[in-house]
Amino acid sequence: MTKQTISVQLSTTKKQKPQTDQLEFGRIFTDHMFIMDYSVERGWHDPKIVPYQPIEMDPAAMVYHYGQSVFEGLKAYLSKEGKVLLFRPKKNIERLNQSNNRLCIPQVDPDTVLEGLKTLIQIDKEWIPTAEGTSLYIRPFIISTEPFLGVAPSKMYKLLIILSPVGSYYKEGIHPVKIAVESEFVRAVAGGTGTAKTAGNYAASLKAQEVAESLGFSQVLWLDGVERKYIEEVGSMNIFFKINDEIVTPALNGSILEGITRNSVIYLLRQWGYSVIEKKISIEELFAAYEAGQLEEAFGTGTAAVISPIGELMWKEHHLVINNGQTGKIAKQLYETITGIQKGAIQDSFDWTIEVDSIRL
Amino acid sequence: MTKQTISVQLSTTKKQKPQTDQLEFGRIFTDHMFIMDYSVERGWHDPKIVPYQPIEMDPAAMVYHYGQSVFEGLKAYLSKEGKVLLFRPKKNIERLNQSNNRLCIPQVDPDTVLEGLKTLIQIDKEWIPTAEGTSLYIRPFIISTEPFLGVAPSKMYKLLIILSPVGSYYKEGIHPVKIAVESEFVRAVAGGTGTAKTAGNYAASLKAQEVAESLGFSQVLWLDGVERKYIEEVGSMNIFFKINDEIVTPALNGSILEGITRNSVIYLLRQWGYSVIEKKISIEELFAAYEAGQLEEAFGTGTAAVISPIGELMWKEHHLVINNGQTGKIAKQLYETITGIQKGAIQDSFDWTIEVDSIRL
Repeated sequence: MTKQTISVQLSTTKKQKPQTDQLEFGRIFTDHMFIMDYSVERGWHDPKIVPYQPIEMDPAAMVYHYGQSVFEGLKAYLSKEGKVLLFRPKKNIERLNQSNNRLCIPQVDPDTVLEGLKTLIQIDKEWIPTAEGTSLYIRPFIISTEPFLGVAPSKMYKLLIILSPVGSYYKEGIHPVKIAVESEFVRAVAGGTGTAKTAGNYAASLKAQEVAESLGFSQVLWLDGVERKYIEEVGSMNIFFKINDEIVTPALNGSILEGITRNSVIYLLRQWGYSVIEKKISIEELFAAYEAGQLEEAFGTGTAAVISPIGELMWKEHHLVINNGQTGKIAKQLYETITGIQKGAIQDSFDWTIEVDSIRL
Repeated sequence: MTKQTISVQLSTTKKQKPQTDQLEFGRIFTDHMFIMDYSVERGWHDPKIVPYQPIEMDPAAMVYHYGQSVFEGLKAYLSKEGKVLLFRPKKNIERLNQSNNRLCIPQVDPDTVLEGLKTLIQIDKEWIPTAEGTSLYIRPFIISTEPFLGVAPSKMYKLLIILSPVGSYYKEGIHPVKIAVESEFVRAVAGGTGTAKTAGNYAASLKAQEVAESLGFSQVLWLDGVERKYIEEVGSMNIFFKINDEIVTPALNGSILEGITRNSVIYLLRQWGYSVIEKKISIEELFAAYEAGQLEEAFGTGTAAVISPIGELMWKEHHLVINNGQTGKIAKQLYETITGIQKGAIQDSFDWTIEVDSIRL
């Protein structure tokens, strides 16, 4: 695949930008979007930036019926020096192609997508908010568009990138959340689509989430779909525990999403000298550690929330209050370090950040 | 919920109708469609028939990202006497609401949907093909439309019904298909969304299907996601076996779709005096029956294909040729009876068919 030239059609009007102290997550979108089409005859073609606008689709478009759809999420930050920084965008594009593979969607050229993403952000860079906890959320996604009701991979697709200035994912910000261990519903199982970032995984998660919220919890902790005992993810984040001075996270097992924040957290913790263990961990084992006073911290990791400390876990009749319901030392240090690197305030010794301004329009 | 009045806006132009001997499945759509919107403030509202047309959606519409989407499939037939007949439509609408429940989509009023469906078919009745093996396929579906990137149930939806004159689902028609037993990928697991007719289940199935087709098979036979040994479904159909004079089909277990054709087949077979057993059946048990010469027939059941005889099953290195690769007696009798009832050519002793013309515009 070769990198393609991106055409640009600028919007003649500009939307009003939101007040950054009132930003929610994912409700406001910028002036432009990136779009690229796929057909069997032409492959991925016609990459362009256009004004943000509705897309017109046939009601028989396959995405509505058979859900062939993948997405990514990443963030852009404006540094104090006015640089526009992206955090590990190549990892996102690499994972997009892994998801494409599982969903029978044709591979995209990573360079074209990265350039599209950079160009779009450069055009809409005035939308990047700077207040504490805010950023410009970037959502690349691919949907199947062929109007056909047979169950088969679509022969037509659209890739879009949209941008949203966002505040904290949780209204609570970095404050600890309460999580319920899910015993009825299952998110994913090995052999399914759990490792892909595809729409159906999220649709499957809503019911458990709805029940948990009605009981006063922010998210659910998913157990594996086979034995219903091994810890997988929390909501749409990966999960980490500090147990007896070691950091433990579920090993990638074919049903857990391979989070990019998860990967960054493991790198950072090891650099800081912690022992990080990726392994199968059962809920019973976690509870035993809690009972022994060895469960010192728990937190989720993901692009949207970055680090989300867990103050309380409910499992059956047990309420596990972790670190007195407070944000733990490691969660706080990780949050500050990762967001610091993302914003260019902390030295990036891993070459994780990429500057957008370095490319020309 | 009360039934709502459906407004009608007729198309000013009419599309050319296809030649019925060249019909494929799900590629051509009629002149009109039904559409109804949902908002939190107004509930389901504004049901209407409009010319078939593209729908305009915000790129952030939740269905593209989090896959909240359910659908149904049923068929209309034109009887020799000119009556428009529907086959068990209330069962489809009931199942639509069951799927809605699993996907956190608000319940629809069954009477409004049935009336919308009947009105739409009445308007487009000239599109119902009459050649052998053809019918008018009806696709009601609901998609989430709120422009929001948070993982939560959408606050806005659209329900649409579109119609497609169709030929046989398989190019082979009622001829036997070759099926591969799937050992790597999993369609669904108890606690997941396998019992709901939702887009993600179909997206998850494509990869296995693609691999199977590349090896010369039409479909895959899904095994359970937990023990990877119990038979679940074939492609997007339920499955039946005739073993030693008994008819065996996998019991509904929380991951199998409760097919309406499956239900009709069980009724018919029992009326004909067959012993029909719904139970857990392992692939080893099936193979043992085959080795003992007791596996007499195998067939899939579903709305699209009605009955799809299985001529060969591949499991590991074993090729199970069933009934000499020919359509079995029971599969043939079921196909002829069900399509006969659907077309009004055979006495319907179960009150399964509903006549569309009996309602007024």
